Amino acid sequence: MKKSLGAKTIVFPTPVFIVGSYDMDGNPNIMNAAWGGICSSNPASVAVAVRPERHTYANIMASRAFTVSIPSIKHVREADYVGIYSGKDGNKFEATGLTPVKGDVVHAPYVAEFPLVLECTLAQTVEIGVHTQFIGTIEDVKADEDVLNENGVPDPAKIQPFTFSPSDAGYYALGEKIAQAFAIGKEL
Amino acid sequence: MKKSLGAKTIVFPTPVFIVGSYDMDGNPNIMNAAWGGICSSNPASVAVAVRPERHTYANIMASRAFTVSIPSIKHVREADYVGIYSGKDGNKFEATGLTPVKGDVVHAPYVAEFPLVLECTLAQTVEIGVHTQFIGTIEDVKADEDVLNENGVPDPAKIQPFTFSPSDAGYYALGEKIAQAFAIGKEL
Repeated sequence: MKKSLGAKTIVFPTPVFIVGSYDMDGNPNIMNAAWGGICSSNPASVAVAVRPERHTYANIMASRAFTVSIPSIKHVREADYVGIYSGKDGNKFEATGLTPVKGDVVHAPYVAEFPLVLECTLAQTVEIGVHTQFIGTIEDVKADEDVLNENGVPDPAKIQPFTFSPSDAGYYALGEKIAQAFAIGKEL
Repeated sequence: MKKSLGAKTIVFPTPVFIVGSYDMDGNPNIMNAAWGGICSSNPASVAVAVRPERHTYANIMASRAFTVSIPSIKHVREADYVGIYSGKDGNKFEATGLTPVKGDVVHAPYVAEFPLVLECTLAQTVEIGVHTQFIGTIEDVKADEDVLNENGVPDPAKIQPFTFSPSDAGYYALGEKIAQAFAIGKEL
């Protein structure tokens, strides 16, 4: 028997997306978004939900671009900080000591210290209650050389990303690889 | 220096959502979707991207409802199986031995053996290239009693969910809790 918990936003896992944008004066900002995910394979697209009252919202609506930087566990403090405080109250790059780098492809800043970065142009906005979903076309993915495996693709064990748990507001590390997708299911 | 990898769908983590739906004859089906995530807090909403050629697509378009069941690592074979084979070719519940249960709130089946389940009504569809994003209003979340913590909320350590890595097509367990969100950032 399952117990009903009501209409809640509980799934596992949710990501820790650090969303980068510039304001009209060119000041870089970042926020922490757990409401998001990949939303199409072609064009490669990622969705991020942002409330209209966020500083990031106005930035993305004006610049039509954003980045998503994926932090390693060693930067969990910085990632959490940018989810607590608003860019309206100060420069979060300066407060955290993180380094903004202008995207190569889009007008948005990413976090130099984080190992994986997506540069996105805004393709669509979707109103869903209190959140606006920004759908970004992924124009480029870039990664630190030292997180690539022998095939040149990002290795989760080297990136050491972490996830957000909505039920207990915990950050959880990624654990061990348990199986290969599109393979282990054929054993049945 | 970061290395450009091109326009790819690489983020960490992506979820393993097992999406349940009925066809016009009432036959239950499930598929594995990694392209999705929470997309609004109010109304509590979840997005799942599905290609129009999927059996699930026609089911959801007709029934205007779906479920999301979150599997534990002990069911990684079954979860992968339903991502490899199509419901057009046979009943995937029968093939995997999983048990369909009709939702209490919506006309869609969930997986009895999986510890956490969302029942959703279809609120919006969004066309994003080769995928259609189904935006579901979460009408109810239900969980097995034995995965709840002392506060009555789902405990990730008991659910033992796993995640999909797009870069190496690996399934990864959830690891240890590393920090409390909205708290550790205040140390900065």
